[in-house]
Amino acid sequence: MTRPEATQAVLDAKTARGVTWAEVAERVGRPRPWVVAALTGQHPMSAEEAGAAAEALGLDEGVIAALQTIPVRGALDTTVPVDPTMYRFYEVLQVYGPTFKELINEDFGDGIMSAITFNLDFQRVDDDSGPRVVITMNGKFLPYQWD
Amino acid sequence: MTRPEATQAVLDAKTARGVTWAEVAERVGRPRPWVVAALTGQHPMSAEEAGAAAEALGLDEGVIAALQTIPVRGALDTTVPVDPTMYRFYEVLQVYGPTFKELINEDFGDGIMSAITFNLDFQRVDDDSGPRVVITMNGKFLPYQWD
Amino acid sequence: MTRPEATQAVLDAKTARGVTWAEVAERVGRPRPWVVAALTGQHPMSAEEAGAAAEALGLDEGVIAALQTIPVRGALDTTVPVDPTMYRFYEVLQVYGPTFKELINEDFGDGIMSAITFNLDFQRVDDDSGPRVVITMNGKFLPYQWD
Amino acid sequence: MTRPEATQAVLDAKTARGVTWAEVAERVGRPRPWVVAALTGQHPMSAEEAGAAAEALGLDEGVIAALQTIPVRGALDTTVPVDPTMYRFYEVLQVYGPTFKELINEDFGDGIMSAITFNLDFQRVDDDSGPRVVITMNGKFLPYQWD
Amino acid sequence: MTRPEATQAVLDAKTARGVTWAEVAERVGRPRPWVVAALTGQHPMSAEEAGAAAEALGLDEGVIAALQTIPVRGALDTTVPVDPTMYRFYEVLQVYGPTFKELINEDFGDGIMSAITFNLDFQRVDDDSGPRVVITMNGKFLPYQWD
Amino acid sequence: MTRPEATQAVLDAKTARGVTWAEVAERVGRPRPWVVAALTGQHPMSAEEAGAAAEALGLDEGVIAALQTIPVRGALDTTVPVDPTMYRFYEVLQVYGPTFKELINEDFGDGIMSAITFNLDFQRVDDDSGPRVVITMNGKFLPYQWD
Amino acid sequence: MTRPEATQAVLDAKTARGVTWAEVAERVGRPRPWVVAALTGQHPMSAEEAGAAAEALGLDEGVIAALQTIPVRGALDTTVPVDPTMYRFYEVLQVYGPTFKELINEDFGDGIMSAITFNLDFQRVDDDSGPRVVITMNGKFLPYQWD
Amino acid sequence: MTRPEATQAVLDAKTARGVTWAEVAERVGRPRPWVVAALTGQHPMSAEEAGAAAEALGLDEGVIAALQTIPVRGALDTTVPVDPTMYRFYEVLQVYGPTFKELINEDFGDGIMSAITFNLDFQRVDDDSGPRVVITMNGKFLPYQWD
Amino acid sequence: MTRPEATQAVLDAKTARGVTWAEVAERVGRPRPWVVAALTGQHPMSAEEAGAAAEALGLDEGVIAALQTIPVRGALDTTVPVDPTMYRFYEVLQVYGPTFKELINEDFGDGIMSAITFNLDFQRVDDDSGPRVVITMNGKFLPYQWD
Amino acid sequence: MTRPEATQAVLDAKTARGVTWAEVAERVGRPRPWVVAALTGQHPMSAEEAGAAAEALGLDEGVIAALQTIPVRGALDTTVPVDPTMYRFYEVLQVYGPTFKELINEDFGDGIMSAITFNLDFQRVDDDSGPRVVITMNGKFLPYQWD
Repeated sequence: MTRPEATQAVLDAKTARGVTWAEVAERVGRPRPWVVAALTGQHPMSAEEAGAAAEALGLDEGVIAALQTIPVRGALDTTVPVDPTMYRFYEVLQVYGPTFKELINEDFGDGIMSAITFNLDFQRVDDDSGPRVVITMNGKFLPYQWD
Repeated sequence: MTRPEATQAVLDAKTARGVTWAEVAERVGRPRPWVVAALTGQHPMSAEEAGAAAEALGLDEGVIAALQTIPVRGALDTTVPVDPTMYRFYEVLQVYGPTFKELINEDFGDGIMSAITFNLDFQRVDDDSGPRVVITMNGKFLPYQWD
Repeated sequence: MTRPEATQAVLDAKTARGVTWAEVAERVGRPRPWVVAALTGQHPMSAEEAGAAAEALGLDEGVIAALQTIPVRGALDTTVPVDPTMYRFYEVLQVYGPTFKELINEDFGDGIMSAITFNLDFQRVDDDSGPRVVITMNGKFLPYQWD
Repeated sequence: MTRPEATQAVLDAKTARGVTWAEVAERVGRPRPWVVAALTGQHPMSAEEAGAAAEALGLDEGVIAALQTIPVRGALDTTVPVDPTMYRFYEVLQVYGPTFKELINEDFGDGIMSAITFNLDFQRVDDDSGPRVVITMNGKFLPYQWD
Repeated sequence: MTRPEATQAVLDAKTARGVTWAEVAERVGRPRPWVVAALTGQHPMSAEEAGAAAEALGLDEGVIAALQTIPVRGALDTTVPVDPTMYRFYEVLQVYGPTFKELINEDFGDGIMSAITFNLDFQRVDDDSGPRVVITMNGKFLPYQWD
Repeated sequence: MTRPEATQAVLDAKTARGVTWAEVAERVGRPRPWVVAALTGQHPMSAEEAGAAAEALGLDEGVIAALQTIPVRGALDTTVPVDPTMYRFYEVLQVYGPTFKELINEDFGDGIMSAITFNLDFQRVDDDSGPRVVITMNGKFLPYQWD
Repeated sequence: MTRPEATQAVLDAKTARGVTWAEVAERVGRPRPWVVAALTGQHPMSAEEAGAAAEALGLDEGVIAALQTIPVRGALDTTVPVDPTMYRFYEVLQVYGPTFKELINEDFGDGIMSAITFNLDFQRVDDDSGPRVVITMNGKFLPYQWD
Repeated sequence: MTRPEATQAVLDAKTARGVTWAEVAERVGRPRPWVVAALTGQHPMSAEEAGAAAEALGLDEGVIAALQTIPVRGALDTTVPVDPTMYRFYEVLQVYGPTFKELINEDFGDGIMSAITFNLDFQRVDDDSGPRVVITMNGKFLPYQWD
Repeated sequence: MTRPEATQAVLDAKTARGVTWAEVAERVGRPRPWVVAALTGQHPMSAEEAGAAAEALGLDEGVIAALQTIPVRGALDTTVPVDPTMYRFYEVLQVYGPTFKELINEDFGDGIMSAITFNLDFQRVDDDSGPRVVITMNGKFLPYQWD
Repeated sequence: MTRPEATQAVLDAKTARGVTWAEVAERVGRPRPWVVAALTGQHPMSAEEAGAAAEALGLDEGVIAALQTIPVRGALDTTVPVDPTMYRFYEVLQVYGPTFKELINEDFGDGIMSAITFNLDFQRVDDDSGPRVVITMNGKFLPYQWD
């Protein structure tokens, strides 16, 4: 079973069972965004995590094994996603990409925000004008360092 | 003067003067990320804002006028940015794009995070393992709505 | 059953049964353009809507379930469609794209026409010089708004 | 003077003079969307129309001559526009392209909506939930016809 | 049966039976280029035409049904064809594209040659220096017309 | 003076002088499509032809010299032209490309229509339903021949 | 059986049988490069040639029939080949493409080397510094000729 | 002076002086294909070679210096050349690329034809059926060798 | 069995058996990087090497045969890899590509580092600031050499 | 002065002065690969470093200032470099990319080689079979780490 096949099995099971990612994440015992990323084929799980996920979703041994392999990452079907929900994040990059760079350079000097030592927080915030999506990207600053 | 010429004039002036974005933003009286985005050609400024920026940076009338026009947005030179500092945000999208969609769907239903009714917060956080870049995207949830 | 498989099943059933989209839409009880978009994999249906569509088209349970999932949107096989009927809409964008932007900016200020809070009307109008296709795009104006 | 240079001259003059497209269109005596398209380099103007536009915008003879030439059409800088205001129309095509084809086929048979015998109407409509952009595409139906 | 499957079935049957397009076209009772285009998936056939083609080629009911559906047009595997016989027509476009436009503009004014109200004639002409391929494209002129 | 600069000089002169391609072609003494192709940078002219064209258009020595050089051919700005008048010829290729191949194979065997030993005829034909563009491509058949 | 399937069958048979192209070519009775090209799907074979190849390789009737059809040519998986052995020929084109054109123009005038009336010779030459690959492309010169 | 500017200066001088590549090559004292490649920006020349070329073409000191620098190679304007004279070599690669690989593998084993230890011969051969372009690529075989 | 199928079989077997590349390489008796490259479809193995690998991994005869064929090389799914672990090497090329060329030119003159007469060393080095990946590319210098 | 202009000024000065990178690096007091990368626009220099480089190369104040700015990194003109010296590194990635990933995963677990905490060593090694290019990439291992 390839990793993409495992991802498809996960999504099918989730629909069939009617479980939520929150429920799966709780069983797995890790933050929900990490669990979703792992189960959509972007992070390997430990045997325990894969087992817990399998229990929550009713997955078989083949899927459990596949979930523990290190995936070839990259989840978009096309270079630029066409699905509107995903496209908006590309749009943010088109509009604010240089802003990110300027601010990182100003506050930290020459370097990058790591996407490896990195986590995400995802929140729903309801204010007067309606619900808002609040996503926090938190990555270690890595200075360009030759030695 | 075209909008890209105005952006170049801003960047040249900033280097020449040695001012920081923080100083310019304070003069303009708006959040730093917004000010950087505006001055890198992604948002129009009001006459007052453009004037304040010009004062901080020593820009001439032509730039001030250009900064008030609504730009054709999109700041990346290539579809996928090659600069590593900007690329990492594309990498986040490749790895977590479907996670963003799954979580929005789970917590809000079918819809998107607006990139228009939207703001960014940018923070430097220093913890034990070193400095971290913390960026918060905050966009209104827009449900798919036919009528 | 994946969403694209469901779309294929819908199209096959429609051809086999010889039903029209108008008939399906009437059963579903929603505007025809919305129903076609939903059944070609671009919008999720409620259980009732999916059931009504299934009845009209003779679809099985698997399709009914799939039609209720939120799809990964984006229906074109290629970045620019080559089918002439679809290409003309790309041509409209190539010729009138900046016109759309200029007019939105002039009448509303800086912002966009939402494609989420959005509906379409499709009409056949017969005048002296023959039938005309009249499509109305109606989307909420969203002003760029930082806070 | 090339056609793109004429377009730039028009946009510069419009900003400098502070005239609106509505004012220019009134002087030219043709619908506003057509006038904007023509002045952004997508349609040739008659000598009278070019003269009237020039008067409204303060353009010189070179521009007037250029505005009367038949342009090489196509206004987007990239295959898919990145400016959010223009992108949303591409998104409409990605989501509703097959819907357009299905409905044209159902109501007219095999053929296309002409983008040549074609006009646009652009309206601002204010309803309870705020202003809406309403754009009507009206093109002659052209049946596939071999002889 | 999808339309591409029907095309494959047609080509297989043609090879197996050893019939020519000329023979098929005669049975169908329409010009050979149109019949080849229809049977390679670019035009829908009437029930009679599909039936006649099926008789000539020995096709089953599924193919006959598929041949009557309106296809998603576009027959090239790649944006620019690599097969030399097909590439030469792209080369003609690269070399003579602006010539076509200049001549249409000179003789007809602003507009296009329709590819919808359009037919092709294909001839073999043998002259002293050997056989020549003579293809005539005949399309209605459509003037740009706003109203 | 590069070849593209010569092309621009030709087009500018043509607009300024108000001459037609037909008039230029008559002076040059060669078919109009060939003359337009040559003057838009796709064929070299003899000294006499370049001189005659220069006389008709009022071009200087630099242009005359440039017109006699063998150009790097290829006139489209993009792989697929976006100008609608030129796009329709690409559309013909998308819809009828395999038809061209099938018919060449059927009538001539394995080979191509030359785009080098090749000429074009361009006609305006007015029939009852209005004017039609009639373009005849006439190229030598070249059989695949190993020796 | 499609042409690509036939190519795969040929390659499988060649590996399984352990025959060389030289042996197959000898049986077929045509130059080795032509035979390899034909059997990798780029030229049609006569019935005799296909039969001889089939005998040498142990191919069945389906393959024999497929080998006689005129293929859709074009053997590269990607626009630019990534396999190093094939890439070097693209590199030759990148480095010497304009040289080829300059030399053809100097020795023959305006025109091309035909890739249709064309053959290849392939030799291994062993000299002091080791073995060398010597490939001779031999194509008819075709002058640009309008009439 | 950049290398591309030097190339342009060479081509301009060649046209203005009316010298042939053969004459320049003779002065330089190296094979004509190498000299053309060097002067079109693909190989560095020694001081003597550059001086001799400059004498033949009437080039100034800046060009002479530039011709001695090691260029960034790659002469095509687009990934696939559109000029027909250059395109045919790409077509050869599309049709015979796998043939080249098969024959190299058969006669030499696993490896490549070097495009670095490499030379070209260019000949005009006139036989009964007319002139032919004969180009010989001669490159050292390099076996894949790990140690 | 095609070469990509053999690669998949290898990866599946490796996961199922829980063997390491180091163990496989030791059995094969060649450097680990070479063995991984060969088993991921980039180099042919000798019969002994393939047999040893098969023993280590439990592969059948079909895989053993496939591993001995010369592969069509090129392992990336996309032109630029999106997997972060692989992308970093592309990033190195974007940042240091011209540096590589400048240093090769300075120390060796005009030429390249061979990727054919080439080997890799891969080491884990643990220093105070943590583990480091140390990869040494070692390729023969090939001077540009015409004769 | 933009960063690319500074790079051009550096390269021009280097050629004009006839200094080597080794000499410049010695003056700057940092490793040669870093200095070349910095001076070809990929790293910012300190004021002292920029001053030393300027002294070695005879650069003016504008260049010195530009060299201290943080560049937008990415030095390739095209996605895949066409210059053969640079292309070989892309070829290494195509052939050994998955090998790099497999070995990193085997020796370090899930993570990447940093291209930020990273240095290069470049050596010429002369052995019996001739000179070899030996490049060592040395990057910190970064494990995927959520918290």
